[in-house]
Amino acid sequence: MAASEAILVLDMSNDSIAPEARAVEKRRAILPRTREFLAWARKSGRPVVFVCSARRKTDKWFLKYWELANEIWKPGQAPIPELYDAQQDTIVHKRRYSGFFDSDLDLTLRELGVSSLIMFGWSTSLAVATTAIDGWQLGYPTTVVSDLCISHAWGGHTVEETHKWSLEFIEAMAKSRIATTADLMK
Amino acid sequence: MAASEAILVLDMSNDSIAPEARAVEKRRAILPRTREFLAWARKSGRPVVFVCSARRKTDKWFLKYWELANEIWKPGQAPIPELYDAQQDTIVHKRRYSGFFDSDLDLTLRELGVSSLIMFGWSTSLAVATTAIDGWQLGYPTTVVSDLCISHAWGGHTVEETHKWSLEFIEAMAKSRIATTADLMK
Amino acid sequence: MAASEAILVLDMSNDSIAPEARAVEKRRAILPRTREFLAWARKSGRPVVFVCSARRKTDKWFLKYWELANEIWKPGQAPIPELYDAQQDTIVHKRRYSGFFDSDLDLTLRELGVSSLIMFGWSTSLAVATTAIDGWQLGYPTTVVSDLCISHAWGGHTVEETHKWSLEFIEAMAKSRIATTADLMK
Amino acid sequence: MAASEAILVLDMSNDSIAPEARAVEKRRAILPRTREFLAWARKSGRPVVFVCSARRKTDKWFLKYWELANEIWKPGQAPIPELYDAQQDTIVHKRRYSGFFDSDLDLTLRELGVSSLIMFGWSTSLAVATTAIDGWQLGYPTTVVSDLCISHAWGGHTVEETHKWSLEFIEAMAKSRIATTADLMK
Repeated sequence: MAASEAILVLDMSNDSIAPEARAVEKRRAILPRTREFLAWARKSGRPVVFVCSARRKTDKWFLKYWELANEIWKPGQAPIPELYDAQQDTIVHKRRYSGFFDSDLDLTLRELGVSSLIMFGWSTSLAVATTAIDGWQLGYPTTVVSDLCISHAWGGHTVEETHKWSLEFIEAMAKSRIATTADLMK
Repeated sequence: MAASEAILVLDMSNDSIAPEARAVEKRRAILPRTREFLAWARKSGRPVVFVCSARRKTDKWFLKYWELANEIWKPGQAPIPELYDAQQDTIVHKRRYSGFFDSDLDLTLRELGVSSLIMFGWSTSLAVATTAIDGWQLGYPTTVVSDLCISHAWGGHTVEETHKWSLEFIEAMAKSRIATTADLMK
Repeated sequence: MAASEAILVLDMSNDSIAPEARAVEKRRAILPRTREFLAWARKSGRPVVFVCSARRKTDKWFLKYWELANEIWKPGQAPIPELYDAQQDTIVHKRRYSGFFDSDLDLTLRELGVSSLIMFGWSTSLAVATTAIDGWQLGYPTTVVSDLCISHAWGGHTVEETHKWSLEFIEAMAKSRIATTADLMK
Repeated sequence: MAASEAILVLDMSNDSIAPEARAVEKRRAILPRTREFLAWARKSGRPVVFVCSARRKTDKWFLKYWELANEIWKPGQAPIPELYDAQQDTIVHKRRYSGFFDSDLDLTLRELGVSSLIMFGWSTSLAVATTAIDGWQLGYPTTVVSDLCISHAWGGHTVEETHKWSLEFIEAMAKSRIATTADLMK
């Protein structure tokens, strides 16, 4: 049972905690708790999948709107070492916001025999929201771990406001269970 | 130039303005203006594509979360007659929120030679937000027509609040131009 | 068990048995046996899915290479009436050769709880070969019903030669079981 | 013009020319000519994309049918060094036969502004045939370089027979131009 539920770690890469990254203090602050949660998840038999943005210098459309970070095949694109277990974990590359968009994430989950998802990472408003919604569209029941998600500021709102709105949006649209690490590790 | 920009009309079906539909008074109130805008669009040479939800009685996953409306091959699923021009317009079926998800919308747009999109319909928070984001993910510049979108209530918020928040979200994530019919028909 | 295995009927539409259609005598000749097989399949509880090509007059790319038949929303595009049970069967539209390509076939099968496929129809070299291969790529075990498939002539070969070659190709690449109606209805 | 035509190099990885690989003598024999052709292609301004199978030890379905080679993140999965130019070429991972199936190949080509394809590699009957057909399904005009493709034996046929049949199949279904390096480098 536990074996058929995967953990998706969204965009927690080296570049994402570099000094110039968005909301970087908040991101760094939750790494110890994330590490604890992942240890619990692995022990419970759940496969851990790092879903990592992989950009290319030639991405003309993407780079009109966003800076070049998480460049494919570079160290900045790799999972944060203190979170990643190279022996057991899986890495999947994504090109856009959603982990499922034009990637092999769904196929990887099928090959792993996964039928439900627990996810977290950043930004609550982008990778988390779009991956949760695509998960629902594909038929995966999802849980979003609220204390392991960090949002970013947009639309004139604070990180706290967009985080709160995004979780409400995810709950209403992706039909996700919104839970804390404490709820889940009980 | 105009010929390569398509109009996407999202979920404006007969069932969507039935008495029991969400936010139905607000939806009905914008039909005359939508009709005017579509007449302008057709005159300008822009192809009009109705992207219509198509549900099946056997959709076990979908029906856990949403009611059965817009059933495929039934009259309720068809475009609202006062908006639809059977001689010129195109209909594409969608199964989930996003017009692009597991549908032939992208292929249809490629076959039509379309390279940018103007979209509207309901709900601002669902079909509009997810189609705009997938449009961006695919590389389409998008315009969302704010006065032809109606949201629905969720998360304890009013239709006005979720509409406003969703447009901000779309602008920040799908990089859409948010414009009114008055802006565009100038 | 039987309930989780679907029957895919590929491109058996009205237009496909019109006088001008490819290999039309051979196609018509197997309709009675197809009807018997479908009756057996329905009785066994297997869902029957007609996967029907749906072309548009605006398909510039497609129409460079193929004639306009099976036009969407027209009677010619519908399943052959003597094969189709409107009460029980499902229709899915496809735009290209493969039933899975940019269609909602995979989603429909997921919603039906289907995990393996029996397929047949025409042409053995096109819809059958590409749908079987995509089925394998997605992880579906497949059976191809050899006496309910008709090929078409290409590359200077006869219909019999391309049929034989295509079944060998399907067996080797899609890892399909190649079986006759007699094998399956036992 | 030339800049919008990409070269797809299919499955020409280190593992694919290891002693135990299929048709390995024939594969090795065309490497010098492939190197010449790629030099010509780069000089003409065409982007070169290596489309490389990337398997995972956890691919239960895949490994039922095929051996584990080209394991993701391992040196065996990388392009053959004498063919690859790390400064200019692009690598895309694929999981199944077709380069387009559940991969980011189409997105990568869109970002590169590519509108037509020249492809080759191995096997003619698998990666080449399925990628050419998906290319056609997506709307890309394709050229298959016949003297840079090697097939494998299946269905009791020789490598030469399956190569010949596969090229005829590709020409008829993917509507590819079948050309030699001599034709193209003229």
